[in-house]
Amino acid sequence: MAVPYSQLSKEELLKLKEEYEHVLKYYKDRGIKLDMSRGKPSVEQLNLSMGMMDVFHSESDLKCEDGTDCRNYGVLDGIPEAKRLLAEIAEVQPEEIMIFGNSSLNVMYDTMARAYMYGIFGNEPWCRQEHVKFLCPVPGYDRHFTITESFGFEMINIPMTPTGPDMDMVEEYVNNDPEVKGIWCVPKYSNPQGISYSDETVRRFAALTPAAPDFRIFWDNAYSVHHLYEDKQDIILEILTECKKAGHPDIVYKFTSTSKITFPGSGVAAIAASPKNIAEIRNFTRIQTIGHDKLNQLRHVRFFRDVYGIQAQMKRHADIIRPKFEMVENILERDLSGLEIGTWTKPLGGYFISFDSLDGCAKAIVQMAKDTGVTMTPAGATFPYGKDPHDSNIRIAPTYPTLTELQTAAEIFTLCVRLVSLNKLLEEKAE
Amino acid sequence: MAVPYSQLSKEELLKLKEEYEHVLKYYKDRGIKLDMSRGKPSVEQLNLSMGMMDVFHSESDLKCEDGTDCRNYGVLDGIPEAKRLLAEIAEVQPEEIMIFGNSSLNVMYDTMARAYMYGIFGNEPWCRQEHVKFLCPVPGYDRHFTITESFGFEMINIPMTPTGPDMDMVEEYVNNDPEVKGIWCVPKYSNPQGISYSDETVRRFAALTPAAPDFRIFWDNAYSVHHLYEDKQDIILEILTECKKAGHPDIVYKFTSTSKITFPGSGVAAIAASPKNIAEIRNFTRIQTIGHDKLNQLRHVRFFRDVYGIQAQMKRHADIIRPKFEMVENILERDLSGLEIGTWTKPLGGYFISFDSLDGCAKAIVQMAKDTGVTMTPAGATFPYGKDPHDSNIRIAPTYPTLTELQTAAEIFTLCVRLVSLNKLLEEKAE
Repeated sequence: MAVPYSQLSKEELLKLKEEYEHVLKYYKDRGIKLDMSRGKPSVEQLNLSMGMMDVFHSESDLKCEDGTDCRNYGVLDGIPEAKRLLAEIAEVQPEEIMIFGNSSLNVMYDTMARAYMYGIFGNEPWCRQEHVKFLCPVPGYDRHFTITESFGFEMINIPMTPTGPDMDMVEEYVNNDPEVKGIWCVPKYSNPQGISYSDETVRRFAALTPAAPDFRIFWDNAYSVHHLYEDKQDIILEILTECKKAGHPDIVYKFTSTSKITFPGSGVAAIAASPKNIAEIRNFTRIQTIGHDKLNQLRHVRFFRDVYGIQAQMKRHADIIRPKFEMVENILERDLSGLEIGTWTKPLGGYFISFDSLDGCAKAIVQMAKDTGVTMTPAGATFPYGKDPHDSNIRIAPTYPTLTELQTAAEIFTLCVRLVSLNKLLEEKAE
Repeated sequence: MAVPYSQLSKEELLKLKEEYEHVLKYYKDRGIKLDMSRGKPSVEQLNLSMGMMDVFHSESDLKCEDGTDCRNYGVLDGIPEAKRLLAEIAEVQPEEIMIFGNSSLNVMYDTMARAYMYGIFGNEPWCRQEHVKFLCPVPGYDRHFTITESFGFEMINIPMTPTGPDMDMVEEYVNNDPEVKGIWCVPKYSNPQGISYSDETVRRFAALTPAAPDFRIFWDNAYSVHHLYEDKQDIILEILTECKKAGHPDIVYKFTSTSKITFPGSGVAAIAASPKNIAEIRNFTRIQTIGHDKLNQLRHVRFFRDVYGIQAQMKRHADIIRPKFEMVENILERDLSGLEIGTWTKPLGGYFISFDSLDGCAKAIVQMAKDTGVTMTPAGATFPYGKDPHDSNIRIAPTYPTLTELQTAAEIFTLCVRLVSLNKLLEEKAE
C-alpha cells in the first residue's frame, strides 16, 4: 500500500527524489521524442477508412440520390443522403441539419463570426454590442477559447462537475446577464475530462431563460459515437429535442463531424439546429459559398451506407484505442495511486484523460516531460486565456502514439508528476 | 445587309413583330427548358477529371512529399506540392500562397470578413469604421457584390473599358478617399465581358497610393488559364510582381482556384499575397481551422503532376467549350448584326459573353426568354444592388448546355432581343 507523499519525512522525500532523478536521466539520455499532446487518431485508425478512397468507379457513381452531379456547383445544404447520415449521427432530423466542409471547428468559428458580423434573429450584431461575455466550462477545449478570445469576448470560467458544468452558476449568469451571449459545451465524453452531461444537466440547459435574446448554447458534440466500450457507454439526452420540449427550440447550435470517424483532415462537418436557426444560417452561408465538397459527402455515404456502418466503424476504432486508454490508466494507477499527488478521469469514450496534479505543479510537470522528450498539451491550455487558476490540469491524449511509445510516454509522465510533487513538498517543508 | 431597326417605319416594325411573335409562340409550345444562367462546366468537361478519383492505391500514396500523412490533422497552409502547383497557376512563389478548401468565393468572403472583424495590419476593423466604400467595376460578378452588400459597405460603380476599369476614376477614389477600402477585379477574361486588363491598367493598379492604410485590391484571377484558343490568348501582367516593383507589395490579395479546371464543387482554392499579408492571413486562419482537405490537394497534384498537366487539361476544356462560344457568337452575328439593337463581347477565354441591349430592354428580354423556357442570369445581376442604370447588360453563359440545347437557347435569346427592341421602338414612335 502506497503511502501519501505528504506523510513522508524530508529524508524520505529526498531519497525518492534522488532515485527518480536517476531514472529521469536514464530516459533523457535515450533521446526520446514522443507526443501525447493532440487528439489525433493513429495511422492504424486512419487505415480503417481506406475503403473510402475507392468508392467511385464510373461517372454515374458521382450522382447522388436525387440525380445531382456531385462534381458540379450547387447544393448549399449538403446532398440528401449525407444530411440523413449526419442527422443520424447527430440524432436529429434531416431538416435540422446543414452539411459543411472538412472542419467542425471552422463551422463553429463561422457560426460565431456570423453572430458577430450580422447578429442573430435581427438582434444587434455582437460586434456592435458594448460587451459580450461567453461562459466556458473548465477544463475545456483550447480551440473553443481561442476562437472566443479572437473576437474580444470576455470568457467566464464555469467549473465542471462529474455531471457537467456547474448549472447553478450557468443559470445565474445566463438568466440574469444580457451580456452573456453563449456557452461552450462538449456534452459527451468532454474534452479533456471525458465527462458526459447528466439528464438533469441537459434538461437544465434546455430550460434556460436567457436574459439575452440572442443567447446560444454552442453544443460541440464531437464525441457522440466515440465509445471505448461496447457494454459501458454514456448516453445523453438529445439537446434539440429537450429545448423543443422546454419551449426554447432556438437556443442551441449543435455541431458534429466525421473527423474522428474517417479522416481528420478530410471528413465532413455539420451543424444541427431548429429549422428557424437553419434558415438563418443558410441565408448567410449562401453569401459565403456556392456549396461544400459534395463528392466527399458522397464518399462518406457510399462507404458507411448508414448509421450501422458508422457504429461498426466506431467499434473498430475502439478496439484500437481502448488498449491505449487502459495502458495509460494502468500506469497512472500503478505509479501514482495512494500517493495523493494527483487524480485523473477514467472516461468511457472520447479522446482524452484529464489529470489534476497538486496545485501549482502542472506547468512544471509538462515542462519536465518536454525536457525528457514527451510533448504534452501545454499546461493551462484547457482554460481560457491559457490560465489555469490552480496550475493543476493536464490533458493526456493517448490515441496517436503506438502502444509501445505510449507506455514510455506514460511512464515518463508519472515520473515527472512524482518528481515535481516531491519538489513542491520539499519546498513546503523548507519554508 | 440588315437595316437598323431605328430606320424602319412603324408598319415594317409591326410586320416584323407579328412574324417574330409567331416564332416565339412556336418555341413556347415546345415546352423548352434550357439554362444559360450560370458559369457551370458541362458534364463532358467534368469527365476530363475523372482520373482524379483514382489516384490513391495504397496507404503510402497518402503521404505528401515531406512525409506528412494527408489523412490526419494539420498543415494549415497546404501541402508543399499543392502550394507549388497553385503558385504556378497563380504565377507567384510558393511562399506567397496559402491553400484553402473547395471554394475561392469562400476564401474571398473570409478575407473580407477578417478585415471586417479584425482589421488589416493593426488598423481599425472595418466593422468599427463609420463608413466603408468598395469600388465595383461594372458589369461584374454578382457574388462579389452580394458579399460586399452583406457587410453594409457602399458599392461604387466603376465603368469597365476595353482595357479594364476606368483607371482615372479608380485613382481618383482610391488615392483621395480614405473610406475606399477595396476594389473587386476579375483581371483576365473578366466576368461577364471577357475583358483582360491591359499592361497599363495593371501598372496603374500597382501604382495606386491609397488614402486608406488598409486598402486592398481583391484580384479574383478566376480565369487565369481558361483560354478558348491556343493561338490567341490574353496575357496580363502579374499583379504581385508589379505591386512589388511599384513599392506597394501589400496592397493586393489575389485569388485562384481549380474549380473550373477539375470539379467545381470539389476543387482547391488559394490566396496569393505578399509574405506580410500571408503571415497575417495565416495567423487568423489558424483560429478558424486546423487545416483544409489535404487529400484533395494531393489528388490534384497526383492527377496533374505540374503546370504542364494543367495546361493540357485546359486545352481539353477549350476544345469542348470553344464551339459553344462560337455557336452563340455566330447566332448573335447572324440574327442581330446591323440591326443596331445590341452589342456583345467576343472573349478569348473565360466563361461568359456579355450582351448589351438598347437601354431599358434587358429585364424584358430576360423575362421573355424565361417565359419561353430559357433561363438567363437575371438582368441587373452584373451590377451592385442588382441595379443596372441602363437596364441593358445581360450575361450569357454558354458552357453548360449541350451544343444542340445551346443553339435553341441562343436562337430564342436573339428572338427575344429583337421582339423587345421592336416593342421599345414602337412605343417610342407612339409617343
